[in-house]
Amino acid sequence: MFYAEKRLQFPVRVDKPNPVFARALQQAIGGVEGEIRVMMQYLFQAWGARGPMKYRDMLLNTGTEEIGHIEMLSTAVALNLEKAPLSFQEEVGANPIAGAVLGGMNLRHILSTGLGALPENSNGVPFNASHVYASGNLAADMYANVAAESTGRVLACRLYEMTDDPGMKEMLSFLIARDTMHQQQWLAVIEDLGGVETQLPMPNTFPQEKEDNRFSYAYFVHDRTQVVPEGRWTQGPSIDGKGEFSAMMSEPLGDVPMLAPARLDGFAQRGQMSADPAQSAQMSAGQQTGLPSSPAGVL
Amino acid sequence: MFYAEKRLQFPVRVDKPNPVFARALQQAIGGVEGEIRVMMQYLFQAWGARGPMKYRDMLLNTGTEEIGHIEMLSTAVALNLEKAPLSFQEEVGANPIAGAVLGGMNLRHILSTGLGALPENSNGVPFNASHVYASGNLAADMYANVAAESTGRVLACRLYEMTDDPGMKEMLSFLIARDTMHQQQWLAVIEDLGGVETQLPMPNTFPQEKEDNRFSYAYFVHDRTQVVPEGRWTQGPSIDGKGEFSAMMSEPLGDVPMLAPARLDGFAQRGQMSADPAQSAQMSAGQQTGLPSSPAGVL
Amino acid sequence: MFYAEKRLQFPVRVDKPNPVFARALQQAIGGVEGEIRVMMQYLFQAWGARGPMKYRDMLLNTGTEEIGHIEMLSTAVALNLEKAPLSFQEEVGANPIAGAVLGGMNLRHILSTGLGALPENSNGVPFNASHVYASGNLAADMYANVAAESTGRVLACRLYEMTDDPGMKEMLSFLIARDTMHQQQWLAVIEDLGGVETQLPMPNTFPQEKEDNRFSYAYFVHDRTQVVPEGRWTQGPSIDGKGEFSAMMSEPLGDVPMLAPARLDGFAQRGQMSADPAQSAQMSAGQQTGLPSSPAGVL
Amino acid sequence: MFYAEKRLQFPVRVDKPNPVFARALQQAIGGVEGEIRVMMQYLFQAWGARGPMKYRDMLLNTGTEEIGHIEMLSTAVALNLEKAPLSFQEEVGANPIAGAVLGGMNLRHILSTGLGALPENSNGVPFNASHVYASGNLAADMYANVAAESTGRVLACRLYEMTDDPGMKEMLSFLIARDTMHQQQWLAVIEDLGGVETQLPMPNTFPQEKEDNRFSYAYFVHDRTQVVPEGRWTQGPSIDGKGEFSAMMSEPLGDVPMLAPARLDGFAQRGQMSADPAQSAQMSAGQQTGLPSSPAGVL
Amino acid sequence: MFYAEKRLQFPVRVDKPNPVFARALQQAIGGVEGEIRVMMQYLFQAWGARGPMKYRDMLLNTGTEEIGHIEMLSTAVALNLEKAPLSFQEEVGANPIAGAVLGGMNLRHILSTGLGALPENSNGVPFNASHVYASGNLAADMYANVAAESTGRVLACRLYEMTDDPGMKEMLSFLIARDTMHQQQWLAVIEDLGGVETQLPMPNTFPQEKEDNRFSYAYFVHDRTQVVPEGRWTQGPSIDGKGEFSAMMSEPLGDVPMLAPARLDGFAQRGQMSADPAQSAQMSAGQQTGLPSSPAGVL
Amino acid sequence: MFYAEKRLQFPVRVDKPNPVFARALQQAIGGVEGEIRVMMQYLFQAWGARGPMKYRDMLLNTGTEEIGHIEMLSTAVALNLEKAPLSFQEEVGANPIAGAVLGGMNLRHILSTGLGALPENSNGVPFNASHVYASGNLAADMYANVAAESTGRVLACRLYEMTDDPGMKEMLSFLIARDTMHQQQWLAVIEDLGGVETQLPMPNTFPQEKEDNRFSYAYFVHDRTQVVPEGRWTQGPSIDGKGEFSAMMSEPLGDVPMLAPARLDGFAQRGQMSADPAQSAQMSAGQQTGLPSSPAGVL
Repeated sequence: MFYAEKRLQFPVRVDKPNPVFARALQQAIGGVEGEIRVMMQYLFQAWGARGPMKYRDMLLNTGTEEIGHIEMLSTAVALNLEKAPLSFQEEVGANPIAGAVLGGMNLRHILSTGLGALPENSNGVPFNASHVYASGNLAADMYANVAAESTGRVLACRLYEMTDDPGMKEMLSFLIARDTMHQQQWLAVIEDLGGVETQLPMPNTFPQEKEDNRFSYAYFVHDRTQVVPEGRWTQGPSIDGKGEFSAMMSEPLGDVPMLAPARLDGFAQRGQMSADPAQSAQMSAGQQTGLPSSPAGVL
Repeated sequence: MFYAEKRLQFPVRVDKPNPVFARALQQAIGGVEGEIRVMMQYLFQAWGARGPMKYRDMLLNTGTEEIGHIEMLSTAVALNLEKAPLSFQEEVGANPIAGAVLGGMNLRHILSTGLGALPENSNGVPFNASHVYASGNLAADMYANVAAESTGRVLACRLYEMTDDPGMKEMLSFLIARDTMHQQQWLAVIEDLGGVETQLPMPNTFPQEKEDNRFSYAYFVHDRTQVVPEGRWTQGPSIDGKGEFSAMMSEPLGDVPMLAPARLDGFAQRGQMSADPAQSAQMSAGQQTGLPSSPAGVL
Repeated sequence: MFYAEKRLQFPVRVDKPNPVFARALQQAIGGVEGEIRVMMQYLFQAWGARGPMKYRDMLLNTGTEEIGHIEMLSTAVALNLEKAPLSFQEEVGANPIAGAVLGGMNLRHILSTGLGALPENSNGVPFNASHVYASGNLAADMYANVAAESTGRVLACRLYEMTDDPGMKEMLSFLIARDTMHQQQWLAVIEDLGGVETQLPMPNTFPQEKEDNRFSYAYFVHDRTQVVPEGRWTQGPSIDGKGEFSAMMSEPLGDVPMLAPARLDGFAQRGQMSADPAQSAQMSAGQQTGLPSSPAGVL
Repeated sequence: MFYAEKRLQFPVRVDKPNPVFARALQQAIGGVEGEIRVMMQYLFQAWGARGPMKYRDMLLNTGTEEIGHIEMLSTAVALNLEKAPLSFQEEVGANPIAGAVLGGMNLRHILSTGLGALPENSNGVPFNASHVYASGNLAADMYANVAAESTGRVLACRLYEMTDDPGMKEMLSFLIARDTMHQQQWLAVIEDLGGVETQLPMPNTFPQEKEDNRFSYAYFVHDRTQVVPEGRWTQGPSIDGKGEFSAMMSEPLGDVPMLAPARLDGFAQRGQMSADPAQSAQMSAGQQTGLPSSPAGVL
Repeated sequence: MFYAEKRLQFPVRVDKPNPVFARALQQAIGGVEGEIRVMMQYLFQAWGARGPMKYRDMLLNTGTEEIGHIEMLSTAVALNLEKAPLSFQEEVGANPIAGAVLGGMNLRHILSTGLGALPENSNGVPFNASHVYASGNLAADMYANVAAESTGRVLACRLYEMTDDPGMKEMLSFLIARDTMHQQQWLAVIEDLGGVETQLPMPNTFPQEKEDNRFSYAYFVHDRTQVVPEGRWTQGPSIDGKGEFSAMMSEPLGDVPMLAPARLDGFAQRGQMSADPAQSAQMSAGQQTGLPSSPAGVL
Repeated sequence: MFYAEKRLQFPVRVDKPNPVFARALQQAIGGVEGEIRVMMQYLFQAWGARGPMKYRDMLLNTGTEEIGHIEMLSTAVALNLEKAPLSFQEEVGANPIAGAVLGGMNLRHILSTGLGALPENSNGVPFNASHVYASGNLAADMYANVAAESTGRVLACRLYEMTDDPGMKEMLSFLIARDTMHQQQWLAVIEDLGGVETQLPMPNTFPQEKEDNRFSYAYFVHDRTQVVPEGRWTQGPSIDGKGEFSAMMSEPLGDVPMLAPARLDGFAQRGQMSADPAQSAQMSAGQQTGLPSSPAGVL
């Protein structure tokens, strides 16, 4: 269960309110890289955790921290909205040559909240909880968490760059530091579990002899002109140390799929019923020669 | 640009059609761990790639492979739907004691597609493209890709376990192998870039002296009873080799947030207008003693 | 900022795991009547609160309580999923005549979480944060909260009725009691502000002489046959004591709307360009007599 | 069934088209506080109404009125879009110093509708019908309706404030009056049913002896520092007259949740399988002393 | 503006309530092929109609009819839910061998509505108003309407086939007839405008000399093996009579895209900054020979 | 399965980057009229195709072409974002009088992608795969495709009009030409199947004697004042040649719907339980005379 403290985890100060920056900050609240997502992701991972309790506890701890980050950012949004123009007259009065602030705002900051934050991203799209990954597989979840904190820190750096408000920069420098820690925290769990090599492939509980091992370490080339982008992924030992990377031209191993004809009681169109797919496959083979190409030369 | 081949990348065969398994397979098509997501994620990462071209090419290649996986799975869904009951009469006729097949199906497989696949998950929720991560930061994207392939392989293993159809197991053993490769492929890019240590924290282009370094390697404890879940994340060198992990009780560093009173033209309620937040903060301090607790003893 | 306690707010015990009931419980987690919604709603109302601090504090308090309710329900879901069938073979083995459990489950409980809860409703639809109402108007928000707790308690009662598990009934009897309290808590705020009459109409800060007072207390009849559903809303003093209810047949006070013809650069179809709407309005008047009716008599 | 009238319920006139205001008006069409929502909410409540027919009839009536409000607002959007810039050249030609109109518009007003309204909110997010509350419990529904009309009237007042167009102000003064009526109409139903006290707690058909009455009128304090926000909700008789409000420090009544270890066939990671949660709970107890706090003094 | 009639447009009778069929019927209410969609689509087309008023009037008329279809279907859902099992005990009592009804239901029919309809599809996904097409181009809209009525009639036929309830079949035979009419009604508008040939390509107001006419009537082959699916679309006069269909192998006319390197202030990863894309393009050319193919022969 | 080519299908060149136009272009990527939609729609139609193989092949071909269109547009977005302002300082520096560019952008182009495209529309709403129509009925699908290409071409023409960049106009002139072809391609399939007349009503496999033929060719008038919008749809032979259009005043053929009273175990409110709907219907009949109308004269 949970407790609150009325004070914020870190000071939030806005020297020069900017309602368009308020809209930008929403990405860190309700965006896919934002704090609602990590809060819910870590908490749901904790609540579904099976296995050693220390991982559950750690997830619960850090999920709880993230609630306070949403609080800081929501406060920052509200402070950036102080003095926002609420009408077209007001905006023109303040700045006769522009008129751009109102148009650049999240209008729900005026219309729906009366100058408060929303659980939405910077384009006004509400957070959707399908972004909460809690797979029941600890290693997979840790990588999902690293991904969240990586894109999250990229976002925080871009917000830091976007603003010139000292208070906002200070708050963001704190959040960026926390993202630094959290990236490493989730990778530390991978080490705690025995290191990357032992964790791959995830899940490491599926008997690998049941997978089609001919293709487990092969980089497939789907370039029609067969050019191979060379790199660490086409040669040398695999990351899990169990195979050798190679490159391979991907060719169809299967056939043309054959579905049964449409059923009478399925209400396809008449022409679809009687068809014998095998026959029509033949019909469809068509000609294969003499096709003109699209006229590149003309360009 | 793109080309197709009418044949499938790998054979898809269903020995014993199972329309409830068709519903389950949808998770691998339109679920957040599924193939539409990785297809679009890799392609959008390729199309927005800035920097060395080899990464763009690789992403384009593998994104192209994934289109073919959607095709395989869509074929598998259609084949599992052959002979599905289309009416309550039919179902009862086939199986007088059950009646459970129709109720367990994705009803849109009957009503909306006439026995074909949908870009939806196993609960019938359509794929939402907000799940496509293409951050412009190569390392962050690679971890998003590892996360996708990890949860994707966990999903494929669970589908393998769920079915007893030899054809489906064979198809899934191929897809599981490809997920094995792709997990390592994205980690190989991290190596190709110089290894994990050099990539952290992501982005590694933000000057770290600008972040609040007091908190960059500290594990914050938000447990009211101050218990610390010990592990690799509370001690020892940080994963990036630039700091030392520690544990720290998280205490509020900020104040109680103070928003301006509601504006006259913002249409709050009358009681909200006149308030002097500082004063009411005081008012709100209330008493702090003698509170009864919830009666745990009674239970 | 926030703290956690590893223990639950109230005991959660499942005597007889039921994976279909696990799916039903999801409605109380991620449904529109559920706990994620109220948690976020109360917290965002707190974070955007302007005016007397005591309301902010109270919202923060109760929002914090709700996080713990999500935790209880998520634990209940996980416990109901212990022993769920993970494959078609397993299910048939356990219960040769049914086969209905797997089909009746949220398949993501198997495929996506490995037997844990999700931030989704009972149909597997993820929570969407557009349901978080925080209008900046305290009275309007209180009614939104009453609505949430009313539909929430109705839901909890239905879940109580649905299950026959004593542990689940005990947990739900606690949650139902909390909903009882919270319904009254939000209505108590209305009293605290001076009572319903003083709060109406919401917002009570818009000068009422600016609204079109001819229609402020009139019940409009839109029944073609002019039957009036009589009740408290058609007669007697209005609830705010400022008017008298009446019933009135609603007749069009406006004209047929006239939009300008389509612009040349807007790419309508040719027939739409040249039209003079006024003229075509006339054209469209058509005949108004002698229409046959749909043949009710035939039925 | 339904009939239309070509004329509008109330005159809609735009003196000075403003395409950014057209975007703002969308909130009243497709926003969560908007008219599509109430139209569908009242109609679905009518169509599912069980019990006295007069409530069904009233809901049907008012739901029908709301369709006409969508029509008025859609007409207002179209009229505000007359003369909108359709290209960057046009905009710069009209107003060499600004360029802000196009950027501040809902671009779909140009690209998708050719200067007509959309069922979207002011940020361009389409209406989602999960906002339609029709619980089958009349009192709960009435509060949901009050909430909709309260946030709806707040929105209409903010739109009134935002615009300086006399025609738009006139239309909004009508809609504000209708919201005044509808707020009271739904509260009048509560009176019609016997008054608030008899309706609480909703549903009033669940036997209250089955709820955990120790907690039915207790305000739970989740403030770590145990400060109580005093108000009507911590003392005096409860609103339903059946209890006495009190305040209580919320303490955990449950234990640390114990889930079974991960199953072999669920594809968690190896470290999660063997764990004995009870043991690891102990392991996780960790130390509980000597933790440094986050360095508030430094700030 | 709008008026209602308490009676239904057509009789709705359920002889044998079936709660799983209630779930199926939801597709016709809130599915993409359903009645909410066409209701809103026709009404928004009417409200944004520019040009001859007769089209606006017709759209308004038929949109109004569709509201009544939602009402009929919602009534049908409620009637199919009479006697639905509300608890696991009840279900087992009624039918000791099954237990499948509750699992096959839309659980929100019990939990959220108390046995009433929802604006959702047959999988419980709420209607999303992005499906409302009102493009401002009359011909394009008519084809969107034909598409809606075609998939709608296919759906209604499948529901007719699914049920064995005489009352439901009668109601569906009416709705199927209306879909028959509406398909032809929208095509009649195309005729009214001058016939298909004159309407193509839509919009017919864009000067066709501005499009790249080399490709306006060419069927592009993207089959790697250059097989052409022959049909009416590869030969003969085009449908608009302005060109001649041909088939053409699609070849890349553009170059490899070259984006600028990542900017320093955009927070990509270090390896992405310094890159000269042109150079790395060369680097990436890689080898183009001797690649092994995926081992088809082995299969 | 699929192959890629690194070169683009058609040259993409941006002479004068415009980040607001980048936002507009997103509509053609992730909007409902955009390329992700048609790509997925044609491919899912192909993968579920039953009947003659030539239609499957054609759909696969054209679906594959569309992937390349997404690629072109994504490249165009990235090129339009080169030199976008990333901070408020930068923007003001570049253009002291405006400040409108940042506010008019999709902020995720800065914050989430680092100047790359997203699978979103021009308002930042992510693509939702519910827009993929693949009904299993070939003719219905072809009309869905015509609708997509019609609204798609309208969109492309509007984008062409909006921009003054020669490179962008060239790219769009290509895409417009392809839309021309694709509109006709899908109509050519209708001809290939035998022509419109034979395909109607869709599906043409439902025995028409089972539909309620009294209403199959009747235009229903729902105008309260009984005005008929005359046109091709009220007279003359029906489009399928099987009937004669007529106009008919729509009257209720059904009764007032009667649902059973609320059940005791469904947790409605007390007043809803005891009601005898038939009786209350009578009660609700109310008076039907002397109602004042809304005071139109006053206006």
